Amino acid sequence: MADPRFFTVAGPFTLAELAARTGTEIGGAGNRDLVLRDVAPVDMAGPTDVTFLDNRKYVEAFTRSRAGAAFVHRELASRAPRGMSLLIGDQPYKAYALAAQAFYPPSRLRPGIAQSAVIDPTARLGPGCEIAPHVVIGAGVEIGADCRIGANSVIGDGVVIGAGARIGPNVTLSHCLIGARVTILPGARIGQDGFGFAPDPAGHVRIPQLGRVRIGDDVEVGANTTIDRGAGPDTIIGDGTMIDNLVQIGHNVTIGRRCVLVAQVGISGSTTLDDFAMIGGQGGLAGHLTIGKGARIAAHSGVMRDVGPGETVCGFPALPSREFWRGVALVQRLARKKGA
Amino acid sequence: MADPRFFTVAGPFTLAELAARTGTEIGGAGNRDLVLRDVAPVDMAGPTDVTFLDNRKYVEAFTRSRAGAAFVHRELASRAPRGMSLLIGDQPYKAYALAAQAFYPPSRLRPGIAQSAVIDPTARLGPGCEIAPHVVIGAGVEIGADCRIGANSVIGDGVVIGAGARIGPNVTLSHCLIGARVTILPGARIGQDGFGFAPDPAGHVRIPQLGRVRIGDDVEVGANTTIDRGAGPDTIIGDGTMIDNLVQIGHNVTIGRRCVLVAQVGISGSTTLDDFAMIGGQGGLAGHLTIGKGARIAAHSGVMRDVGPGETVCGFPALPSREFWRGVALVQRLARKKGA
Amino acid sequence: MADPRFFTVAGPFTLAELAARTGTEIGGAGNRDLVLRDVAPVDMAGPTDVTFLDNRKYVEAFTRSRAGAAFVHRELASRAPRGMSLLIGDQPYKAYALAAQAFYPPSRLRPGIAQSAVIDPTARLGPGCEIAPHVVIGAGVEIGADCRIGANSVIGDGVVIGAGARIGPNVTLSHCLIGARVTILPGARIGQDGFGFAPDPAGHVRIPQLGRVRIGDDVEVGANTTIDRGAGPDTIIGDGTMIDNLVQIGHNVTIGRRCVLVAQVGISGSTTLDDFAMIGGQGGLAGHLTIGKGARIAAHSGVMRDVGPGETVCGFPALPSREFWRGVALVQRLARKKGA
Repeated sequence: MADPRFFTVAGPFTLAELAARTGTEIGGAGNRDLVLRDVAPVDMAGPTDVTFLDNRKYVEAFTRSRAGAAFVHRELASRAPRGMSLLIGDQPYKAYALAAQAFYPPSRLRPGIAQSAVIDPTARLGPGCEIAPHVVIGAGVEIGADCRIGANSVIGDGVVIGAGARIGPNVTLSHCLIGARVTILPGARIGQDGFGFAPDPAGHVRIPQLGRVRIGDDVEVGANTTIDRGAGPDTIIGDGTMIDNLVQIGHNVTIGRRCVLVAQVGISGSTTLDDFAMIGGQGGLAGHLTIGKGARIAAHSGVMRDVGPGETVCGFPALPSREFWRGVALVQRLARKKGA
Repeated sequence: MADPRFFTVAGPFTLAELAARTGTEIGGAGNRDLVLRDVAPVDMAGPTDVTFLDNRKYVEAFTRSRAGAAFVHRELASRAPRGMSLLIGDQPYKAYALAAQAFYPPSRLRPGIAQSAVIDPTARLGPGCEIAPHVVIGAGVEIGADCRIGANSVIGDGVVIGAGARIGPNVTLSHCLIGARVTILPGARIGQDGFGFAPDPAGHVRIPQLGRVRIGDDVEVGANTTIDRGAGPDTIIGDGTMIDNLVQIGHNVTIGRRCVLVAQVGISGSTTLDDFAMIGGQGGLAGHLTIGKGARIAAHSGVMRDVGPGETVCGFPALPSREFWRGVALVQRLARKKGA
Repeated sequence: MADPRFFTVAGPFTLAELAARTGTEIGGAGNRDLVLRDVAPVDMAGPTDVTFLDNRKYVEAFTRSRAGAAFVHRELASRAPRGMSLLIGDQPYKAYALAAQAFYPPSRLRPGIAQSAVIDPTARLGPGCEIAPHVVIGAGVEIGADCRIGANSVIGDGVVIGAGARIGPNVTLSHCLIGARVTILPGARIGQDGFGFAPDPAGHVRIPQLGRVRIGDDVEVGANTTIDRGAGPDTIIGDGTMIDNLVQIGHNVTIGRRCVLVAQVGISGSTTLDDFAMIGGQGGLAGHLTIGKGARIAAHSGVMRDVGPGETVCGFPALPSREFWRGVALVQRLARKKGA
């Protein structure tokens, strides 16, 4: 069970309620009225817990699980222990995620404005917002309904934030337009000057950065991540894109919908990612590239050329994955043969 | 036009005024009294905008541009459309940057000290400073004239900041001496303990870090960048050096004048960069190295040896660029031939 | 001498006092009553300074040093200049570190709670704590004796911090249990949501992150480093582990005792490091790996497989170091021979 100092469990839910919330079909022992009180991993779940099986690696553990109920794919339902109630669907992990959200909904807002918050009189706040201590909100800011702005965060003049956003503590926002239900983790910096100057050995000359950052709905931005505003065009993050911690996104970058950027990724200025692209941790992209729809860039890789839709690349310079691995194998084989 | 929620355009300026401010020569249609109201990219500029042509790639767009005026190199001036006024010089991009600064000067200071700022009575602030809400300024701090300290920033005891500095929100400074006209973006951390200890399996022993960070004039430090103070000697950043976001600079590092460090670069302790060195994004340097004047380190490269003046290196371990690319080509060719 | 604006030197100490504090043996000129006033590097030390010799590279400088006393290994003691008092032991660098700590102890706490700090009435603070301005401390927080919480830091509900911790300014802590004598540098983020979701092109589904971060005693966490809480299990950092700046530690990671993680390292979810493992700067580890006791991962390397106890690996994909270097040498040789 999650530590009650940090988490409050909701529920309980009956099996039938969970089936309805997650769009799954009841199977196995199929006790519709079974009362479930928590979620738990397959090897730790007890009779009032719901678990899931998503990965064939855990089938053995599943067959011995004491969970009261489990989300499972149709094809693996037969491996359930006798007496377990099942919630069957095509995406058991997604269904489990929805159930976990039901048991552990986001902490409730405590609407109100902390006394120490400093809010410009021209800022407009929607109903139900929670503004934590020491927050600073600038002139002309617009914040939608039911947002949380975490302690010590700073929202610069003119920023727009959609309804239902959760902005963590110690965040800095400026020159940006943020969609609905966006989550921004602590220490993220969004909208500051991009790295733009005319290089000159006699003294680099700063170029005013005149664009914004536009973030779609349901985006998540990780802790201490930095997203620079555009130089003239905007920097754009599409709906539903997930960005991990310590990621750097340069000016004029365009990221499509539901992309995934793992921690410490760096994207140089004016590069474009189409929808569903994924970049593994520490991956780096040069500037002015085009990354196609659903492309995958392996962790720790450095990309210097465009990547086509659906392509998977790896290494530095990043190559199609098969080529990369063939090169690695070749070098190892030759090195062993010839010594050095 | 830049979003008026975030930017206020100055001007207008006549062509003659822009020529004087940027040190360029009037040419083309040469209408000295032409009134220019904004800057714009070559394909979006209209008759009251000034644009620029710097890259031959954009010559076609330039010939069709509707801009009232353009900064252009002498050699490309003849490609201007009829009726366009020209501002001719050897560095059209730099001249454009100066014009853009004229149209979009840094936001004006609002001198004064926010009520919630906590300032030690022994700190000395020059005239014209803007101290935002919730700033904390320690004992003995000296801040020059016309500085801005952003909201929720913390300036530790004894820190010295030159005139005209712009310190963003949520910044932490300690144990540092900062020059004039320095810009520090949100979330940067400067002057904290370096990573210094006597390793011992029985318990690593911390070594007090007794140096400072000394930053020259006109330096820019990016968002969430970290610069550790020296262990005994200082960590030094030379005049006019540009440092992007999420860069790590270890203790005792010395960086020369007008170097360029792109995002997520990491420089290990006691390494020295001579003037004008450039490091691409995610580049990493081992400790105790010497990087020569004007050396260039490609993005995503890992440097384990000294790099000579003017040299360009790439890869991990970083090699002279030609060698690196020859190796890449060789491996790809062999891998294709032999399969794996 | 360290800049008195930032550092206050304690002492003086006699040679005999330093020998007692550092567990070393008096030798050389052996003046037990010699009064020492400061520490200094071998080439800059004067007659009232104590220095050290740890690296054979500096033996020449040592023979000419004007230091009053030096920590030195038994084997190199004979190289000391005539008249120098020696403090002889097996770990001269560690002994020097202890002496430096004596001369420069951590700055003294100024117990008390700043007026602008916002502290939930249910939080419990031990005696002797220093709570700086604009700190926010949530419900149910427990902080041990003699802790410092730096300005503008935010401690979320339920967090537990052991005695003697030093939390820097602008830090965010949530969902974490922190041991005794832990140091957290400015801007670190600990305990936020891990990067967990069920991927779905129709909209990724967030998985509630129900674990915590558990940090042992005597751990150091660098500036702007991020440590995500566990997804269900905890994220764990063992006693005495040293973590540098801008490091990313994903959910469910377990790190053993006295490991060393240099700047910009990234560790993906559910990876385990055994005690004494070391990762060089910018090193990256894939998820679900096991890194053995005392393993060493070279800077800038990307690890995709388990690493055995005591192994040293390098490159991407990381290979045993000898194999890596053999491959590098082979490619360079072939490329030179065949051209490209």
